[in-house]
Amino acid sequence: MSTFGQIFRVTTYGESHCKSVGCIVDGVPPGMSLTEQDIQPQLSRRRPGQSKLSTPRNEKDKVEIQSGVEFNKTLGTPIAMLIRNEDQRPHDYNDMDNYPRPSHADFTYLEKYNLKASSGGGRASARETIGRVAAGGIAEKFLKQVSNVEIVGFVSQIGSVKMDRDPFDPKFHHLLNTITREKVDSIGFIRCPDVNLAGAMVQEIEKYRGNKDSIGGVVTCVVRNLPTGLGEPCFDKLEALLAHAMLSIPASKGFEIGSGFQGVSVPGSKHNDMFYFDEETQRLRTKTNLSGGIQGGISNGENIYFSVAFKSVATISQEQETCTYDGKPGVLAAKGRHDPAVTPRAIPIVEAMTALVLTDALLIQKSRDFAKSITH
Amino acid sequence: MSTFGQIFRVTTYGESHCKSVGCIVDGVPPGMSLTEQDIQPQLSRRRPGQSKLSTPRNEKDKVEIQSGVEFNKTLGTPIAMLIRNEDQRPHDYNDMDNYPRPSHADFTYLEKYNLKASSGGGRASARETIGRVAAGGIAEKFLKQVSNVEIVGFVSQIGSVKMDRDPFDPKFHHLLNTITREKVDSIGFIRCPDVNLAGAMVQEIEKYRGNKDSIGGVVTCVVRNLPTGLGEPCFDKLEALLAHAMLSIPASKGFEIGSGFQGVSVPGSKHNDMFYFDEETQRLRTKTNLSGGIQGGISNGENIYFSVAFKSVATISQEQETCTYDGKPGVLAAKGRHDPAVTPRAIPIVEAMTALVLTDALLIQKSRDFAKSITH
Amino acid sequence: MSTFGQIFRVTTYGESHCKSVGCIVDGVPPGMSLTEQDIQPQLSRRRPGQSKLSTPRNEKDKVEIQSGVEFNKTLGTPIAMLIRNEDQRPHDYNDMDNYPRPSHADFTYLEKYNLKASSGGGRASARETIGRVAAGGIAEKFLKQVSNVEIVGFVSQIGSVKMDRDPFDPKFHHLLNTITREKVDSIGFIRCPDVNLAGAMVQEIEKYRGNKDSIGGVVTCVVRNLPTGLGEPCFDKLEALLAHAMLSIPASKGFEIGSGFQGVSVPGSKHNDMFYFDEETQRLRTKTNLSGGIQGGISNGENIYFSVAFKSVATISQEQETCTYDGKPGVLAAKGRHDPAVTPRAIPIVEAMTALVLTDALLIQKSRDFAKSITH
Amino acid sequence: MSTFGQIFRVTTYGESHCKSVGCIVDGVPPGMSLTEQDIQPQLSRRRPGQSKLSTPRNEKDKVEIQSGVEFNKTLGTPIAMLIRNEDQRPHDYNDMDNYPRPSHADFTYLEKYNLKASSGGGRASARETIGRVAAGGIAEKFLKQVSNVEIVGFVSQIGSVKMDRDPFDPKFHHLLNTITREKVDSIGFIRCPDVNLAGAMVQEIEKYRGNKDSIGGVVTCVVRNLPTGLGEPCFDKLEALLAHAMLSIPASKGFEIGSGFQGVSVPGSKHNDMFYFDEETQRLRTKTNLSGGIQGGISNGENIYFSVAFKSVATISQEQETCTYDGKPGVLAAKGRHDPAVTPRAIPIVEAMTALVLTDALLIQKSRDFAKSITH
Repeated sequence: MSTFGQIFRVTTYGESHCKSVGCIVDGVPPGMSLTEQDIQPQLSRRRPGQSKLSTPRNEKDKVEIQSGVEFNKTLGTPIAMLIRNEDQRPHDYNDMDNYPRPSHADFTYLEKYNLKASSGGGRASARETIGRVAAGGIAEKFLKQVSNVEIVGFVSQIGSVKMDRDPFDPKFHHLLNTITREKVDSIGFIRCPDVNLAGAMVQEIEKYRGNKDSIGGVVTCVVRNLPTGLGEPCFDKLEALLAHAMLSIPASKGFEIGSGFQGVSVPGSKHNDMFYFDEETQRLRTKTNLSGGIQGGISNGENIYFSVAFKSVATISQEQETCTYDGKPGVLAAKGRHDPAVTPRAIPIVEAMTALVLTDALLIQKSRDFAKSITH
Repeated sequence: MSTFGQIFRVTTYGESHCKSVGCIVDGVPPGMSLTEQDIQPQLSRRRPGQSKLSTPRNEKDKVEIQSGVEFNKTLGTPIAMLIRNEDQRPHDYNDMDNYPRPSHADFTYLEKYNLKASSGGGRASARETIGRVAAGGIAEKFLKQVSNVEIVGFVSQIGSVKMDRDPFDPKFHHLLNTITREKVDSIGFIRCPDVNLAGAMVQEIEKYRGNKDSIGGVVTCVVRNLPTGLGEPCFDKLEALLAHAMLSIPASKGFEIGSGFQGVSVPGSKHNDMFYFDEETQRLRTKTNLSGGIQGGISNGENIYFSVAFKSVATISQEQETCTYDGKPGVLAAKGRHDPAVTPRAIPIVEAMTALVLTDALLIQKSRDFAKSITH
Repeated sequence: MSTFGQIFRVTTYGESHCKSVGCIVDGVPPGMSLTEQDIQPQLSRRRPGQSKLSTPRNEKDKVEIQSGVEFNKTLGTPIAMLIRNEDQRPHDYNDMDNYPRPSHADFTYLEKYNLKASSGGGRASARETIGRVAAGGIAEKFLKQVSNVEIVGFVSQIGSVKMDRDPFDPKFHHLLNTITREKVDSIGFIRCPDVNLAGAMVQEIEKYRGNKDSIGGVVTCVVRNLPTGLGEPCFDKLEALLAHAMLSIPASKGFEIGSGFQGVSVPGSKHNDMFYFDEETQRLRTKTNLSGGIQGGISNGENIYFSVAFKSVATISQEQETCTYDGKPGVLAAKGRHDPAVTPRAIPIVEAMTALVLTDALLIQKSRDFAKSITH
Repeated sequence: MSTFGQIFRVTTYGESHCKSVGCIVDGVPPGMSLTEQDIQPQLSRRRPGQSKLSTPRNEKDKVEIQSGVEFNKTLGTPIAMLIRNEDQRPHDYNDMDNYPRPSHADFTYLEKYNLKASSGGGRASARETIGRVAAGGIAEKFLKQVSNVEIVGFVSQIGSVKMDRDPFDPKFHHLLNTITREKVDSIGFIRCPDVNLAGAMVQEIEKYRGNKDSIGGVVTCVVRNLPTGLGEPCFDKLEALLAHAMLSIPASKGFEIGSGFQGVSVPGSKHNDMFYFDEETQRLRTKTNLSGGIQGGISNGENIYFSVAFKSVATISQEQETCTYDGKPGVLAAKGRHDPAVTPRAIPIVEAMTALVLTDALLIQKSRDFAKSITH
């Protein structure tokens, strides 16, 4: 459904062609300074129209806080936020009405809800993610205050152009330790921190744009400075919550944490993260981090890092041989311009969902911390 | 936490060295015939000691239904099931007590709960999964009755020995269409349906066993005959629930559905699953199935298929250079024999978690089906 | 928190002095015709300023549907609704700022959230209930379509003026069988269906208004035509959900269903509702209905009826000897005019919460109905 | 369903005629000393057969902890507990098989689940409550450690014999301040702290027993030493959670907190609890406590007190003119001896459910406390 989280909880609403999209964030820490300026940057990063690589629809996506804040301080009560839908253009899609768009949600929404929204699969629209990103802004600000938690996503693959994500490679971990959003954005809208690859990725996208086609990509995300102890075994292991969050993002097809699918072929003797005592932080740390910062479903204080696969966008201008709702074969081509590669724009969504998961897990763990302080 | 599902809901309990492990299954359809014989087969498939490839601990794992069944019929009330822990041997682990086992949950459980269980990370034990498998037996039986839903998992990779899982390859889809548990088990405990690769996989495992080491693997799972409409956007998309379920299984590090990470480099024009009208079933189907049976978070009636990466087992008999809880460097080696590759035994767990996700999603969708029948 | 319900789920937001109040309704049946005209009537019934008996603040409370509806049909996606706060007047309360208002939520909100909102206990404001009433409008419309479910609340007590609510009295049951909202409202804003008592109640209120005081009351509510089978034992018995819902309404102090507190002194031989076969409906019914339409936590098809006690409003203009936040004794008197008796305005809130409980329970039961149809 | 609570969560199972009844308690504070001796006392207080006033069935109800405890310390993992059903006697009910027992759950369970359990309404059995009481033992022990929280229930009414529960009466509050379980039990099984009334109550019960009839009662419960800040507006106000919990107990028909239904006729000027600064505890307290320790849904540090109405037991030996499942009129009389008044035995159930609500609310609030400490 449209609610996510247990004691820090987000509920979103809205599709492409309604009055507004937005969310209610419940369980917000009280007394936190908060204005729309805290929320807007990630919304703007998510926004289409940031470069020629993305769709030219010029949505403004200005967030308006409705409740839960007084004199720029959170009250602890639910914070509702809305972002108006300005560029609705519902008639753009008229010609396609008889066709369920291939690999889009038109057919499944019809099966589930027995209706065809003018926007096709209503909540399968990318605009659905705006509420998530707005909510993530609050979560991120809180995590920053708790322990300077940093969440940074970047593009690690576009089509066949792929950064090495070798969990044994110190360079990869150096990147994870040092990458910032500023660096990610400084490379341009492609948001790949490897400057050489970034150019190849842009070319890859341009190639598919020229063909009226689209292409997928991978977002890799790192979380630094997270406290230990987060995650609630056995079903709500921290990686399980992250996987849930990531696979709920439109077009995502895969998730891997730490060594991921590569780790399968690494023997235990190499895959195990040996412990050592770190003099600087005066605590146990691990020499390697194949685990990706989570062991037994619980954060261990090392960097959390994971990757999310995004398939190529389903809406393409190329002609497609498919059939109508009533089974007649035909040719369908989307009108208008379409974003050939949404992966770079998925970054703030990945970051937001990460922040939502971590804030909820952290707040629950703080309760566990209290409990164990009492009983010992 | 230890509860999973909304209206079909499972709660598990138990660790390695307590009296029993088990579960309570709530929201069970009433009037279903059910005996322990429905539950036992998957428990036995999960059990260690089935072949020389796995650990020799000879646990019996006999399930005992405690409630919710009368005269072999479910009452609709919660079904509690317990499986006694017979082979506890808590002293086996004594020498390791000063060391947090690398890449196990000892350290994180200490951080989270402030204690060291004699079994290390209590619920990180593989025995925790018994309750899931028991519950899955009920779910599977129900799904079978609803629409002959079939869930079949198999090993598609051990270490570097890898089956091709090409989503464009008709052979792969033929396998997904025809594979059965009987076939999977007929190959031996390795449970890889490719007879040639099965041998290589066994050799791979034996190699690591010889080195007192361990190795990971991938389980691929297919779901056939599932109705359309399952999944609750936007946060409870069906693939998100499956990802949550799979990443909650101990040692899992990755999940991909349909084309997964491979799909990233396939352009939209090829990745899109075109529709056609299927004369046999008299409904729309897709020519290809790169989506993996889910579009927009909702099942579309095609096969659902996904893969789960399992890292190599953390407990190995090889000496490991690590450190004690209080930071002193030292060498640790687990005593006793240990399973060098648990991936084949993960299959019934993957199948069980799949069944739990689908039963809950299906029951919720039946409510949606009612609602839409009223309002039209 | 601010979310209520399992598969039909409402999340509300907003306090007195923010931009808007409202809600997101999730799990809405798709294909239902819906406009703002379906929502507005109950909001208007809840609105202050309807008569001289209530507060003169003239809020408009116009609902604006933001999402989830297209061409006046629900999409099955979340429906967000907002109602702007027009009459904020935050300075009215300035003089009271040093005092936690007695029996209001100022003190407990400070304890919980560590802050003083300009509106005192932010979400303890009566405006919080607007989102509930808006959501209830959708639920009621659906229940009506399912089986003509009727929910009617009325005032059965104001101060010491009390209608007889004898569960043995055929007259009382006749009232429950026949009362409609039209009749309730025809009596005037007091909303007591007993014309004679209505006058006495008005006098009771006027007496307290004259003293700058306030007085409480009881709302009794009946549900007719509800299907059997609703309610999920053992913790989510239907009466438990109703009790939860009712005690979540501001100022409510008690709930009783069927014979309630009176039933305590009735022996089982009289209290038991004997069965008979009803020729008209061709099903088992009960001769009496002391149970209040629920047995074992599950609806039995008879009228559900219950009563909710509301204490006198805490905000009064009379001087009160209390103390400041820092413990100094002093005298506090609220400025402005205040509603001396909110019980009549609580009716649409009681009705809305009832509709939310029943819709969720009904949708879940429809899933159970499917399950049992399969397994038999 | 059969799960209660958010981060301290109980799931129960079991009916009269299965192998065992019990529960899984999840989210248990780790490191707490716990043995079966902590759980047994309340189970024994709940047990029938404690005096001639109650049913002679001599159930042992010995709890067996299955998991989550090692060396008498909680692990933080789920604690499963089971209590075997020794005295099953399923054949006792044979003659009644054609009749849905009036005001029992046989009919509604048939409607909901489409079957007749040999025990009639399976989970409507009083044995269902054993799991709750076992779980409550853990919760109570934790609350005691946190701030010496004391929860004491007592019988305040049996049939027409009624203690005065006047919220203005200092004597009543003196009782609430001083009553202990030891005192309650010292009076005998009737558990009414007013010695004179206790005798009259025993006579009242004997009168109905003589008539093969039954009679209801009221349990009043007080909570002392609870911290401020508990409760999660707006839907999870502390009184709403308590009401939910209490109305989920079999045979309960009403709940009132603080002044309750009596408070309706008390004007605001008298009902408002004025504040003063308490030198002893150095904090704000209220002069009166009509609110019952909760304001705006949040605990204010005063005693919480509430009452729960229990109807007369439905199972009586007297002949009842009712009808069979297929609608034929007939006369039904339960065989065997039956408890004419279960109210005294409901006390440990009321106390347990109270403890479950408070532990969950307290753990959540500790998380809120952390959050506000960070953001200020």
